[in-house]
Amino acid sequence: MKWKRSERLVDMTYYLLEHPHRLIPLTYFSELYNSAKSSISEDLTIVKETFEEKGIGLLVTVPGAAGGVKYIPKMKDDEVQEVIQTLISELSKSDRLLPGGYLFMTDLLGNPELINRVGKVFASAFSDQQIDVIMTVATKGISIAHSIAKHLNVPVVVVRRDSKVTEGSTVSINYVSGSSRRIQTMVLSKRSMKSGQRVLITDDFMKVGGTLNGMKNLLEEFDCELAGIAVLVEAEHADESLVDDYYSLVKLHEVNEKDRTIALTEGNYFSKERK
Amino acid sequence: MKWKRSERLVDMTYYLLEHPHRLIPLTYFSELYNSAKSSISEDLTIVKETFEEKGIGLLVTVPGAAGGVKYIPKMKDDEVQEVIQTLISELSKSDRLLPGGYLFMTDLLGNPELINRVGKVFASAFSDQQIDVIMTVATKGISIAHSIAKHLNVPVVVVRRDSKVTEGSTVSINYVSGSSRRIQTMVLSKRSMKSGQRVLITDDFMKVGGTLNGMKNLLEEFDCELAGIAVLVEAEHADESLVDDYYSLVKLHEVNEKDRTIALTEGNYFSKERK
Repeated sequence: MKWKRSERLVDMTYYLLEHPHRLIPLTYFSELYNSAKSSISEDLTIVKETFEEKGIGLLVTVPGAAGGVKYIPKMKDDEVQEVIQTLISELSKSDRLLPGGYLFMTDLLGNPELINRVGKVFASAFSDQQIDVIMTVATKGISIAHSIAKHLNVPVVVVRRDSKVTEGSTVSINYVSGSSRRIQTMVLSKRSMKSGQRVLITDDFMKVGGTLNGMKNLLEEFDCELAGIAVLVEAEHADESLVDDYYSLVKLHEVNEKDRTIALTEGNYFSKERK
Repeated sequence: MKWKRSERLVDMTYYLLEHPHRLIPLTYFSELYNSAKSSISEDLTIVKETFEEKGIGLLVTVPGAAGGVKYIPKMKDDEVQEVIQTLISELSKSDRLLPGGYLFMTDLLGNPELINRVGKVFASAFSDQQIDVIMTVATKGISIAHSIAKHLNVPVVVVRRDSKVTEGSTVSINYVSGSSRRIQTMVLSKRSMKSGQRVLITDDFMKVGGTLNGMKNLLEEFDCELAGIAVLVEAEHADESLVDDYYSLVKLHEVNEKDRTIALTEGNYFSKERK
């Protein structure tokens, strides 16, 4: 069966979106659609222009016998700004205030459309770097980790507080929690990562950075390299930060429990210098 | 700017895939692309036919003034079979055997392409039911829950073993763990669900069903209704099951620690009667 261009465009768009950051040889499409490579190239030009025009992402063509085409999710700055503003307006609602000045954000972390966009924002920031693994710590950062992982098409590993029989042999470290100054433990299955892998660490919330710093130390135990840190919300604090090189979308300045107000601004996403 | 049909098809496909189970009025597209509704209708017919032909899903048209079009992710049976066979072949590798007859499957739960497909399988099974929330328990079921949630476009709530300050007021229940017969606790933030919501429960592994049964009991505390249960792997066991109405993709029959073999078959996904 020979496919019409219009049908090819729909199916090709689907296939590319489902396989981000993966090189797809043109022969894959030409055999699948029983069409000449020249027609497939023309199709891909249309897809590429539309993806770029609409801020869906980039379509990178790699020439040569081992070449092909690769979809790179990349969000435009104005859409990133929209995501940040959505987060700020959601997080500044006073009913999110919890005793002790904490903010309730579990609902946002469980919202699939929002978290899909947050993941795409971070995947965009790291789109031209080699990332092999996304790491987070249980439980609240997991949805962000999986969303970034989906857009970069790499696996997620989840660090735990306790050792479970279903994890097999584990590597465990102790670290000092930033705010409470208590010694805590982190555990990761030995099979999670191979030495030399480049790891992007993510979490939903960062204050002094104790937990993130713990994950950095854990990377060393695996001979892995830190590729970057991505946090949804960072909180202003008086202590010295344990982590300095990170991206954040939102910054929490002050929580006033008496007036029930929450002061939030944009995080460092746009102000941080890109590598 | 007027869009060409080819460009509209690419962008429309992207938009529909990003917003499953949501009714999109035709005027949304006709205004966005500055095109007549009749042209948009023709575009949608092409998208619909390609989605159905390739097993991407259904495009349901709702007529009338409040009408529009809705993308329903729906995987064809042969692709579901492929997902199941991939899982069986992965899980039967002898190096997954852990002391005590447990199977290592954390890597599969962190694999974005595989989990995306698993989520689509379950979303397909429940595509014509009203589902308001996906519920799971920390930690290993979270990736499956988020993948189902993405395909059904509904939020995820994560039950925890312990109460955290960032969850606000919580509802807590005690339940009997199926295999160890110990009393355990489950905690869920009070704001997670509203009374009357229909909840799909999911987890990575089920033996007697103690944890799933605990989540069922938790639903009652919230005056919510059980819409269904979806598990990746169910294990054969001698005790009486605490849960009977569920979908599973894979069934674990026997683990032979001496010979290092794992006996797996297809779960009940195809044999279970559909509602």
